[in-house]
Amino acid sequence: MGYGDLDQLAINTIRTLAVDATFKANSGHPGAPMGMAPIAHVLFNKFMTFNPKNPNWVNRDRFVLSNGHGCMLQYAVLHLFGYRISMDDLKDFRHVDSITPGHPESHDTDGIEVTTGPLGQGFANAVGLAIAQAHTGAVFNKPGYDLINNYTYCFFGDGCAMEGIASEAASTAGHLQLGNLIMIYDDNHISIDGDTKCAFTEDVLKRFEAYGWHTQWVKEGDTDLEGMEAAIKKAQEVKDKPSVIKLTTTIGFGSKLQGTGGVHGNPLKEDDCKQVKKKFGFNPEESFVVPKEVYDAYHKHAAEGAAAEEEWNQLFSKYKEEHKDLGAELQRRLDGKLPEGWEKKLPVYKPTDGAQASRKLSEKVLEEIHEAVPELLSGSADLTGSNNTRWKNAIDFQPPSLGIGEWSGRYLRYGVREHGMAGIMNGISAYGTLIPAGGTFLNFVSYAAGSVRLSALSHARVIYIATHDSIGLGEDGPTHQPIETLAHFRALPNMMVWRPADGNETSAAYYMAITSKQTPSILALTRQNLPQLENSTIEKAIKGGYVAVEAEKANITLVSTGSEVSLCVEAAKYLKDKHDVTARVVSIPCFEVFDAQPKEYRLQCLPDGIPSMSVEVMSTLGWERYSHEQFGLNRFGASGAYKDVYKKFDFVPEGIARRAMATIDFYKDAK
Amino acid sequence: MGYGDLDQLAINTIRTLAVDATFKANSGHPGAPMGMAPIAHVLFNKFMTFNPKNPNWVNRDRFVLSNGHGCMLQYAVLHLFGYRISMDDLKDFRHVDSITPGHPESHDTDGIEVTTGPLGQGFANAVGLAIAQAHTGAVFNKPGYDLINNYTYCFFGDGCAMEGIASEAASTAGHLQLGNLIMIYDDNHISIDGDTKCAFTEDVLKRFEAYGWHTQWVKEGDTDLEGMEAAIKKAQEVKDKPSVIKLTTTIGFGSKLQGTGGVHGNPLKEDDCKQVKKKFGFNPEESFVVPKEVYDAYHKHAAEGAAAEEEWNQLFSKYKEEHKDLGAELQRRLDGKLPEGWEKKLPVYKPTDGAQASRKLSEKVLEEIHEAVPELLSGSADLTGSNNTRWKNAIDFQPPSLGIGEWSGRYLRYGVREHGMAGIMNGISAYGTLIPAGGTFLNFVSYAAGSVRLSALSHARVIYIATHDSIGLGEDGPTHQPIETLAHFRALPNMMVWRPADGNETSAAYYMAITSKQTPSILALTRQNLPQLENSTIEKAIKGGYVAVEAEKANITLVSTGSEVSLCVEAAKYLKDKHDVTARVVSIPCFEVFDAQPKEYRLQCLPDGIPSMSVEVMSTLGWERYSHEQFGLNRFGASGAYKDVYKKFDFVPEGIARRAMATIDFYKDAK
Ligand SMILES: [Ca+2]
Ligand SMILES: [Ca+2]
Repeated sequence: MGYGDLDQLAINTIRTLAVDATFKANSGHPGAPMGMAPIAHVLFNKFMTFNPKNPNWVNRDRFVLSNGHGCMLQYAVLHLFGYRISMDDLKDFRHVDSITPGHPESHDTDGIEVTTGPLGQGFANAVGLAIAQAHTGAVFNKPGYDLINNYTYCFFGDGCAMEGIASEAASTAGHLQLGNLIMIYDDNHISIDGDTKCAFTEDVLKRFEAYGWHTQWVKEGDTDLEGMEAAIKKAQEVKDKPSVIKLTTTIGFGSKLQGTGGVHGNPLKEDDCKQVKKKFGFNPEESFVVPKEVYDAYHKHAAEGAAAEEEWNQLFSKYKEEHKDLGAELQRRLDGKLPEGWEKKLPVYKPTDGAQASRKLSEKVLEEIHEAVPELLSGSADLTGSNNTRWKNAIDFQPPSLGIGEWSGRYLRYGVREHGMAGIMNGISAYGTLIPAGGTFLNFVSYAAGSVRLSALSHARVIYIATHDSIGLGEDGPTHQPIETLAHFRALPNMMVWRPADGNETSAAYYMAITSKQTPSILALTRQNLPQLENSTIEKAIKGGYVAVEAEKANITLVSTGSEVSLCVEAAKYLKDKHDVTARVVSIPCFEVFDAQPKEYRLQCLPDGIPSMSVEVMSTLGWERYSHEQFGLNRFGASGAYKDVYKKFDFVPEGIARRAMATIDFYKDAK
Repeated sequence: MGYGDLDQLAINTIRTLAVDATFKANSGHPGAPMGMAPIAHVLFNKFMTFNPKNPNWVNRDRFVLSNGHGCMLQYAVLHLFGYRISMDDLKDFRHVDSITPGHPESHDTDGIEVTTGPLGQGFANAVGLAIAQAHTGAVFNKPGYDLINNYTYCFFGDGCAMEGIASEAASTAGHLQLGNLIMIYDDNHISIDGDTKCAFTEDVLKRFEAYGWHTQWVKEGDTDLEGMEAAIKKAQEVKDKPSVIKLTTTIGFGSKLQGTGGVHGNPLKEDDCKQVKKKFGFNPEESFVVPKEVYDAYHKHAAEGAAAEEEWNQLFSKYKEEHKDLGAELQRRLDGKLPEGWEKKLPVYKPTDGAQASRKLSEKVLEEIHEAVPELLSGSADLTGSNNTRWKNAIDFQPPSLGIGEWSGRYLRYGVREHGMAGIMNGISAYGTLIPAGGTFLNFVSYAAGSVRLSALSHARVIYIATHDSIGLGEDGPTHQPIETLAHFRALPNMMVWRPADGNETSAAYYMAITSKQTPSILALTRQNLPQLENSTIEKAIKGGYVAVEAEKANITLVSTGSEVSLCVEAAKYLKDKHDVTARVVSIPCFEVFDAQPKEYRLQCLPDGIPSMSVEVMSTLGWERYSHEQFGLNRFGASGAYKDVYKKFDFVPEGIARRAMATIDFYKDAK
């Protein structure tokens, strides 16, 4: 302990950098950085171990700014420590193509662990990072080798505290007793609508207590550096609970508008900028100033971090000798490599193999590959038996004290918390040693849309196992039957939406989901049984689309996905038998991947010159890309046995055939 | 108080009906109805006032089954009281086209207030119903005329308690001190994954205390009818807090598998059905049996409800004499009519009027119409100043004790709780006297996707004011810039997605949003200024699409929405000036409405024979429907000043013109 002038100077340096950068950008949020500069100074310097020269060192302490709009705090701190963020980058804050965008993006900027800004997301990510640490430590740590023991720290504000995703993640973290997770709640009484009194009067700490967290309150968050240090120290000592420290701060500390909404989302006025600098002993006429002694102090801590990494590297070298297999395994994961030959475990099917629901086919994949791919961490949002996400001998990831699992367990019970699950999976993925997969009904992936979007934006290899993927789920009815969901996620950049039609397509979907290191996947899977197709292979399906039934001189191409592909195959037979009409059938399990194929290949699948009709039991939006006519469901579904529901909407071979004939006729006339 | 054999018989009748209906359907959830039959019996008979012959009586007590999978409880109870649900309807449970679908749907079935099943939604709806009651009562009640004083009751289970949306709504309800809201938490320790110990170990009552709720615990929820009654009575007496009663029950009470996950989501086996009936004194060989004395008792309570309504009607008649204006106003709302001539208040613009952001144009609409449409209740998820959702002299809806608003206030501060806001708005709409409108950024409407879907499914007139609708929001960057969002909601049935291009289109969007009583709307609005178009009128825009720039012998049609329409107009000028090429421009502010126009009209807008290109700064998915070529953004955006971002992605007149020329060339070759 013992804080002096240099500490205050450093804190005020961070504040003035935030003031200058938002002023120069004429946009941004100075308030949170000015209010949280003291805690950031204490946390990063007194507690966190990291090496700015190697931001990927696996055992670094993790920091998440869940109130991501305050990112000038993070950029300033990273700059001071010598991360690859230059003063010019700070001056480029919120400019096109800078590495200092308006909200922090992990794939753009060294030292940013996760992409935050959408409120509550970082909170859930932090829980995921802590889970990944606990699991990875349990798998790899050995006596004398405490290899993986980092903490995860997270700042969050009132906005995050109000978001449901943070509630879900907080309840999960409390249940899981994540002692390695320490959060700082920036209690500044201000949100965009002004005083939090207008909408947010709950007792936040009491709520966290109810979740099972250790709670503390530091009342003088602007000045009491010793109190902050003591609270974090105490939080570290609590090993069986996550910790939250409520820190009462003054938003925009130092500004003439401090403590008001005026400093939340707008730069300070010019005279206020000068006033702040003067107050803090800076030259009001200068901008973007870092006193040398501040750089020196921060660089010194950075050097300590580099030394810590070097020490760790030596420990890891010794470990690799003493624990050859585990050492090689950890090294492989750190190298970003998949286990050699894992893909040979993927199930392969013959047309004569029995019909199965694709959720069962997915279960089979997990059963077959889980030993070969030990970084796979499965789970479900309380639908384990329906999502079929758990291999038979799986052990739950649980605090051992509960007696129902282990830290090394690879199956996570997320509870009925889809959004929390997705945000947590983004955090698990960001840790770097695991591939998270989590299940819910496809319809309820929508509950998680905020996080799913960030999986895609932040290039997180997250696998959404989305069963009960259509009206085919039957009796549960329209509230549970997705109509718009595939269109939604097909429109999301960098997201693979897979809707496999049989066993080989399901294996292909997993192959692509696991090998695409920068892209998340949604696997849309059926509740009902599907026959194995004649011509499907993993090799064909990984192209995202292929010809499932070829025919010479065809009159029409039926193009489809998932459960409707085999219906189209039946419809093709029906057309031949009843109308002597020849239909080809094309399966497109993944638009994103199919669209990336060479044009010749795509034209081979969907040749010009013959009419085509899409068949999928949901919104037709987007199918115009591949077809002249669309047979879909632009209305909500119905509750009933799935065959009755399919029949109600005419998704039967005759119904498809009738529409195919009409399409052929129309196209004839149009020529 | 005083419960006897008849009460037990009624409770067991409900249980056996649930057993029989799920058995016959071979699907469904018997566990919750069997566990919650006692509380339902007590609540409906001892506390609730309603008239089954007029399920729309405005002052009825409201009941919401947030754990909607237990809907056989609700169907059975409604049947016993004589609602329009026959014994045959119960036998038709979960069959196609029945009025007893797998989850309760408000537009299908009398007595179902809101559509539930997706967990947590009903919880938020109940908060909305209670808000609507508090507001409506404050507006219309007068001394001697306590016209609107109903309670809202809600059952919810562990699943709802885990969902973030329920946390958001609970925090809101606590803040708002909704004394008219009484919730029963079915604490049965079971969710789909089994014992809640595996994922849900928080202290639920303590959490609700932290939110500001009054909490009670009835430990013998299977048997202690007196305890339940006393708890509800106590809850009614607490006027300044919402109440939650934790009721510890045995899921599937009576079954051989009671207290286990085995009775949650699967019908009882045949021998267990018989065993249950025998245990309860029913003939094990008979099904769907209601003892006459049970009907008699329930019908007696129903008759009391009918009498209560009759009394109320007389009171209301007197009220209409004494308070002529208010009486007529309430009558108008109950008749489902809009105020005469309100639409004349909608702003109309000339091309010479200044450029404005459509969020400002939206604000102007609210400013102009809020007096004429007093049932409009606006609000925002903590983005009031950004969404421009508050008219100048608005009063906040707040508990008066806070000193910052009134129950009669028409502006709701939802906090940073998008999903909660949407679920609450669905409940407000369901109450029947209000039209809720709520703001957030378009990108964060996705956080609310679960509830937005239910707005559409349950035909709720809810208005989503979704500002900052594209990369045009600028500096906040990709985390806040929607790409997939319009495709998502355009694919949702019964949802109007409006993206107005100027003032008249914004007025048209509001016109349609307010007059479409069965359809919700999302209004996608800009942060940046838009010029007023030459040819826009409200009359044209309410067709969902129209010709914004007509031209003889045009070489191409540019089809667009929102902020890109005026860019297309500029591009058309550029094409004429630089290339002597003639372009028409079509604006399609709403796909859903445009698609409903006669084919001739649509062809008039988008004639065959000339190439067309869509221009919209987001995912092109779905635009193939209206265009040969698509210019969009199938990637994430960028952080920077909005003009720089538009330029980066070539959304400038030259960029559009270049692609238009290429499209014209391609189409020439293709002919
Ligand atoms: Ca705050
Ligand atoms: Ca339960």
